Amino acid sequence: MAGRIDGTIDGTGGDAEIVLLDHPDVGALLRSGADLTRGGRSVPLAGATFAPVVTHPEKIICVGVNYADHIAEMGHEPPTAPTLFAKYRRALIGASDDITLPPPHISTSIDWEVELCVVIGKELRNASETEALDAVAGYTILNDVSVRDWQKRTSQFLAGKTFEGTTPVGPWMVTRDELGDGSGLAIRSEVNGVVKQDSNTSKLAIGVSEILSYLSTITTLDVGDIIATGTPGGVGAARTPPEWLAEGSEVRCSIEGIGELRNTCRF
Amino acid sequence: MAGRIDGTIDGTGGDAEIVLLDHPDVGALLRSGADLTRGGRSVPLAGATFAPVVTHPEKIICVGVNYADHIAEMGHEPPTAPTLFAKYRRALIGASDDITLPPPHISTSIDWEVELCVVIGKELRNASETEALDAVAGYTILNDVSVRDWQKRTSQFLAGKTFEGTTPVGPWMVTRDELGDGSGLAIRSEVNGVVKQDSNTSKLAIGVSEILSYLSTITTLDVGDIIATGTPGGVGAARTPPEWLAEGSEVRCSIEGIGELRNTCRF
Repeated sequence: MAGRIDGTIDGTGGDAEIVLLDHPDVGALLRSGADLTRGGRSVPLAGATFAPVVTHPEKIICVGVNYADHIAEMGHEPPTAPTLFAKYRRALIGASDDITLPPPHISTSIDWEVELCVVIGKELRNASETEALDAVAGYTILNDVSVRDWQKRTSQFLAGKTFEGTTPVGPWMVTRDELGDGSGLAIRSEVNGVVKQDSNTSKLAIGVSEILSYLSTITTLDVGDIIATGTPGGVGAARTPPEWLAEGSEVRCSIEGIGELRNTCRF
Repeated sequence: MAGRIDGTIDGTGGDAEIVLLDHPDVGALLRSGADLTRGGRSVPLAGATFAPVVTHPEKIICVGVNYADHIAEMGHEPPTAPTLFAKYRRALIGASDDITLPPPHISTSIDWEVELCVVIGKELRNASETEALDAVAGYTILNDVSVRDWQKRTSQFLAGKTFEGTTPVGPWMVTRDELGDGSGLAIRSEVNGVVKQDSNTSKLAIGVSEILSYLSTITTLDVGDIIATGTPGGVGAARTPPEWLAEGSEVRCSIEGIGELRNTCRF
């Protein structure tokens, strides 16, 4: 298929179709206030490629250290508040795009992190947890691919979290009416067909509504902001010996009720 | 003066005038590729208010832990690489705007941090230090106002660094032909007329060109990106007893050859 699309899915299986929307991405759609279900031209899902669900989010906010098994494997303390770090937009890629590995002389310690990702649908400031949940437009999947040696070079994770072209987001947004507060969903990653992470979003130490309420105390959440909620245990850095993504590695990240990201690693 | 302006200064002292530019902010001007010195209508400097130099930067990148005396006072180790963290756009305010204090039940530990701030004028990727310096459009001042207890609540600084309406940037950009690599400039902060920080940008542990080269290994720097280079010793958290900004506190941050920020703290 020519070009990059975002759309809604109509049907499943081999004959599923995508309904194209009148906006360049889901962020623009949400900001317009238009009806999310309004249809347009249909095209086959098969062969479609997807841009990141929101291509130009005002903010990309990530929560780290938020599943008990990942906290233990990384040697962190359980959180008393969300551990927050950022990514910049140039990190984002689509659901089937290649992950851009930095060249080996920069790093060979590239790791996977499947995460439930929230898309904000309403401005939110100083919100209670109930108000916060009402601002969720929907959910997608984010693979918080991490350059571990750069992440650990200083106290601050950012350097290892925002390498250009490393963070798949997608394939689409599933609206909140289908997934509620995002809990109770099987979450899994595979590398080259071998399961690496296999958990459930009910194991989040700090859940979606609490994360959003906390963030809204700091600053206004904007329509189209994307918020990654943390990754479960099973990352490469915590394995013995450590395992890393390399040229040609195929990473599949899936969340129940949403779909999957499939990305190949390339220099 | 009605509205918010960015411009160039013509003359000094009480009769100085600002030449208005044909762009909404310095970022838009730089992205347009237009002549930085091209003039327009002049208005008096006296009474003007300034928006943040770049109101919608693609990225706001901050370097922490980058002056020896501040490293010592905060109990950090000297850096082997730039310590990087982010701010989001909603943190930014102009050179004379009020700093928005969070209410006392959220935090009373609000601190000052004067910093030399780089504005990027050319896209930069995988650049040498020489190439990096050539991408600097100019310099401004940033007061990295920090909510210390939120900054220290987890391992990651971000929460305490991006409270809405807390970060003055300005008052204008001084082009690189006047300030070279940004070293050798007196840098100072005062609170209610008392000097708190008084140093020189030559004491940066990691200088501007090295910071930019390092960042360009991670991701492309975009035109209009703003990069704060770290603060010298003398912050409130490191004083005995600690000192904090409060309702009505007046903070003045100045850098030789650039100008000053003057902001009052308000709930």
